[in-house]
Amino acid sequence: MIDYDISKSEFLKNINYPNDLKKLNLMDLRTLADEVREYLIDTISKIGGHLGASLGVCELTLALHYVFNTPDDKIVWDVGHQAYIHKILTGRKEALKSIRQKDGISGFLKRDESEYDVFGAGHATTSISAALGIATARDFLNKKNKVVAVIGDGSMTGGMAYEAMNNIGLLKKDIIVVLNDNKMSIAPNVWSLQNYFNELMTNDTYNRLRSKVWDMTGALDKKMSNRLRKAAAKIEGGLKGVITPGMLFEALGFRYFGPINGHNVVNLVKIMEEIYKMSGPILLHIITEKGKGPSYATDHPQKIHALNPFDKTTGIEYKKSPVTAYTKVFGTALVELAKRDEKIVAVNAAMPDGTGLNYIQKEIPERYFDVGIAEQHAVTFCAGLAAEGFTPVAAIYSTFLQRAFDQIIHDVAIQKLPVVFVLDRGGLVGADGPTHHGAFDLSYLRLIPNMVIMSPKDENELRNMLYTATLYKRGPIAMRYPRGNALGVQTGQFQKMEIGKGETVKEGKDIAIVAIGNMVKHSLDAAELLKDKNIDAEIINARFVKPLDIELLTDVFGRFKKIITVEDNTIAGGFGSAVAEFAVQNNFKNDILIHGIPDRFIEHGKPEELHADLKIDATGIAGVAEEFFNKQKIYV
Amino acid sequence: MIDYDISKSEFLKNINYPNDLKKLNLMDLRTLADEVREYLIDTISKIGGHLGASLGVCELTLALHYVFNTPDDKIVWDVGHQAYIHKILTGRKEALKSIRQKDGISGFLKRDESEYDVFGAGHATTSISAALGIATARDFLNKKNKVVAVIGDGSMTGGMAYEAMNNIGLLKKDIIVVLNDNKMSIAPNVWSLQNYFNELMTNDTYNRLRSKVWDMTGALDKKMSNRLRKAAAKIEGGLKGVITPGMLFEALGFRYFGPINGHNVVNLVKIMEEIYKMSGPILLHIITEKGKGPSYATDHPQKIHALNPFDKTTGIEYKKSPVTAYTKVFGTALVELAKRDEKIVAVNAAMPDGTGLNYIQKEIPERYFDVGIAEQHAVTFCAGLAAEGFTPVAAIYSTFLQRAFDQIIHDVAIQKLPVVFVLDRGGLVGADGPTHHGAFDLSYLRLIPNMVIMSPKDENELRNMLYTATLYKRGPIAMRYPRGNALGVQTGQFQKMEIGKGETVKEGKDIAIVAIGNMVKHSLDAAELLKDKNIDAEIINARFVKPLDIELLTDVFGRFKKIITVEDNTIAGGFGSAVAEFAVQNNFKNDILIHGIPDRFIEHGKPEELHADLKIDATGIAGVAEEFFNKQKIYV
Repeated sequence: MIDYDISKSEFLKNINYPNDLKKLNLMDLRTLADEVREYLIDTISKIGGHLGASLGVCELTLALHYVFNTPDDKIVWDVGHQAYIHKILTGRKEALKSIRQKDGISGFLKRDESEYDVFGAGHATTSISAALGIATARDFLNKKNKVVAVIGDGSMTGGMAYEAMNNIGLLKKDIIVVLNDNKMSIAPNVWSLQNYFNELMTNDTYNRLRSKVWDMTGALDKKMSNRLRKAAAKIEGGLKGVITPGMLFEALGFRYFGPINGHNVVNLVKIMEEIYKMSGPILLHIITEKGKGPSYATDHPQKIHALNPFDKTTGIEYKKSPVTAYTKVFGTALVELAKRDEKIVAVNAAMPDGTGLNYIQKEIPERYFDVGIAEQHAVTFCAGLAAEGFTPVAAIYSTFLQRAFDQIIHDVAIQKLPVVFVLDRGGLVGADGPTHHGAFDLSYLRLIPNMVIMSPKDENELRNMLYTATLYKRGPIAMRYPRGNALGVQTGQFQKMEIGKGETVKEGKDIAIVAIGNMVKHSLDAAELLKDKNIDAEIINARFVKPLDIELLTDVFGRFKKIITVEDNTIAGGFGSAVAEFAVQNNFKNDILIHGIPDRFIEHGKPEELHADLKIDATGIAGVAEEFFNKQKIYV
Repeated sequence: MIDYDISKSEFLKNINYPNDLKKLNLMDLRTLADEVREYLIDTISKIGGHLGASLGVCELTLALHYVFNTPDDKIVWDVGHQAYIHKILTGRKEALKSIRQKDGISGFLKRDESEYDVFGAGHATTSISAALGIATARDFLNKKNKVVAVIGDGSMTGGMAYEAMNNIGLLKKDIIVVLNDNKMSIAPNVWSLQNYFNELMTNDTYNRLRSKVWDMTGALDKKMSNRLRKAAAKIEGGLKGVITPGMLFEALGFRYFGPINGHNVVNLVKIMEEIYKMSGPILLHIITEKGKGPSYATDHPQKIHALNPFDKTTGIEYKKSPVTAYTKVFGTALVELAKRDEKIVAVNAAMPDGTGLNYIQKEIPERYFDVGIAEQHAVTFCAGLAAEGFTPVAAIYSTFLQRAFDQIIHDVAIQKLPVVFVLDRGGLVGADGPTHHGAFDLSYLRLIPNMVIMSPKDENELRNMLYTATLYKRGPIAMRYPRGNALGVQTGQFQKMEIGKGETVKEGKDIAIVAIGNMVKHSLDAAELLKDKNIDAEIINARFVKPLDIELLTDVFGRFKKIITVEDNTIAGGFGSAVAEFAVQNNFKNDILIHGIPDRFIEHGKPEELHADLKIDATGIAGVAEEFFNKQKIYV
């Protein structure tokens, strides 16, 4: 494919900021939309990135920046990965080529990056709450700027959206919520209201009734009376046939406009210009297609949610690793186990593909539940299942499970209910950056009583840990593993593991490295490097963060003066912190080094780049170990 | 007042389990309701407890156990403090006298306590999710039992309720949700839909239109046509005038019944008997009065949300402590500060009285926000305010802030927004037990980068910390303090404190006790006791859990061989854990003892009883310190 030559574009070449956009005639926005799409696809095809969401909001983004006076008017985007075109139009057209790359611009909204990025957003469903805060501040300052929240139907499944709209309805603030309804959040069919809307819009009852009432404004005759009787009968019948999508929002105190076609940029601008003059809470409901543009994108919108570099004519990703991703290892192992044990049920929050639950979804659909972007509900739903003797497996990314922290404590752990938590994307996830790193799970789970926490060193151990988890009936049990490919080791029959037992994976005599999860492999590789420095490191695979293997640790603390813990988790309260607690409570005087993610948010970049930066790759660990080993005296 | 003599009751004396209830004639339930109310008030007036919620659901509880076959049919109560009458009817009539007392029955639902307590509930808004899990399990097992969730309008402000209803609507499960609408969750006016319902029900538009349509079923004449035209015009006008409360639930896939009077037990039974025969998701909307019964309760429902022992004729609590509660110290200090600094804004989640925000609510209402039981939204709303230069003070109980864990990380800390978190009820809260103890906050906040965490030793320090927090603009800052009375020390002018600086409150030479928050006073008292053992303890007030006072700790670690940390927080990942991390990372070889709440859920009891049990009262600390001091060798 030939590269898109922006200098040959009619309009895009001259667009750097919203003010440039405003110089265009309204009709020219249609051509610009095509150019922006082509530029976006061309750029992202080379470097990878979220594509579908931004393609879907192309016209919306143009219309917003055309009508509103950004950055004085505040546009608050929900889930920043829909904001690539927003970035193109707000000073980052060139920078788009670096999106999600190390030291490049973020794949999400980021306040540090641009004054047009009003509020950071990686996780879903935050925009309306943030917009209310921003609008409230505006009113205190007697400013007149507009505040717009742009939220997808997927994010609307999150309860926080409802909390925020409820609050806005009470406060009657001037806020515009744009509901970008692509009927296809991340996965389809998780929003009940969506089905309801669809029914309304497709069966035309609503439209037909509307027409009837219009007709009725003429003179009344007998025939008309009959028609009216039918209409009125519907009122008695619950009004189900005549309710408008807007009523729900109207009940929450919003003035409703829509639904309108979100790809007709001219109409979008016109309606926004009208809305611009209005006050109070307003909801504009637009219908878009995720991936609007190339046929492969609209045909397979789930596939292009997040992409590696791809062929822009076909949408096919260039390379697939020959090694299986952990996600698939989990997903297929779960199917195997669920076929043996009919009490196993899988639950996820709008991420069937990302979590690997697509396998059970396909093979045993009756035991697969997608609850929407609703992690809180997901966890308590699992607790209910567990209370009745089932073994629910909640597969939720490490970073998103933060949303259900209270439910894990209050609904699961206090009641010792056997919910299996499977946390994919534990540790540094790479290009998605600080909003998405799973850097805290070992800490936030470890503080919860009754919780068991495991992390596998490879795919075989992952399978065995999952098996073990489904057999464990004494309370909650969590397994976390990283994003990306497994190690390529042989997997075998499921083996039940002993809870709280680690293993020595390499014996040594000079220094002990106690590692967890993916850091075991890095540490083993580090041991090879340390050999060249004449340091013989013993490598321990801790396997369990909670309960710790006290026996193994006692042995290690007895045999080694110097001990390093290594984890792909924040040092604060994490695995090494648990080992430190063990050491001080048992009065061990060994030299201990807790090595892991420092106590700050880590920017985006490839996991291997970030691991190298933080010295938790093999080279980094070897370097840290060597320095620690050679340090002979107290170094305070 | 004379004690209520249950043996003289007509029916209650014979009621121990739901089967006893079913022997009664329907009409006798009215007398029983009176007897139950009298017994409840009599009992709780002596020992204290949540009263209003249970009074409000008296008839509902009778009707539920009369109609449904508990425990085979599952009743899932939201927020267990409305379940006192449920406990009376399910084998705990006598045990009610021990409710919330140490070793007595729990003030909330508890699975361990009774097979009738289907699902534990202390926090709000969990019941519908749990009920869906229970109903899903039932269907897998091909059972036919009913599942009922009972949820208040207050809990309905929590987004999780919406997440769950959305999911139920999709799955079309047989579930009955009873919406107990007392227009008065914990505080009034936080539910937008509530206002909407009220409007509908009071202006009678809905009822009048209903009548019209009924009339219309007769023959049509000219006059009728005109009426119909008017009705139809309303359809065109947005249908706002004719929408029923039920539509909102119908849109979510529920069949709606109501609203009906929740104090007419006969009608309640009749409608429930009808509903019993139905399938699919059903919502029964009942209207009740919180505190129904004595006039002081219905007149002041907020006051009787949770009570100390009181005079049952007047509702007046017997004794008030002469010492000010921390809650009030905070609430009044905030008003002082807000009067000086107009950027200070107060936000809470349906707990104005409990958090002390009732003072600013009264004095500066325009800067007070109650967002409903919606902690997630509360925090991100604060983030939006902070993004625009305001200083929001989010006052949320320690245990409830767990609900917003992800928002603290994702919306506040990553963006370094200066939100002030004020966590009342840090540590062991007493009678509310494991669902409400603030036993985790130091741990769950400490793992978050950019977070500052303080805990005051007394009310003067609380004031100064709050002042300091409102001046700190570099990111989030949290202050936690316990439930209950302050120490009674003199308070003075606000003093700005240095971030991350502790203090030595008593010098010593034998052992150092590094304490945080309320444990400073306990440790000082312990030092007095230790004197008698000829142990001279130095007492350090750490003040900050994050950042630690490295300089002070380095000095202490240099001067003392043995150091104890003391906190009213779980040991796992808490304050002492931070000190342990500091020690090992800096290769200190001191003997360290981390003393605090062990890694298990703590049952209910008075805080002083629990402190004694866990040896974190003065006597306990002294004992632990003495033993630790006398232990001369490594004790592994």
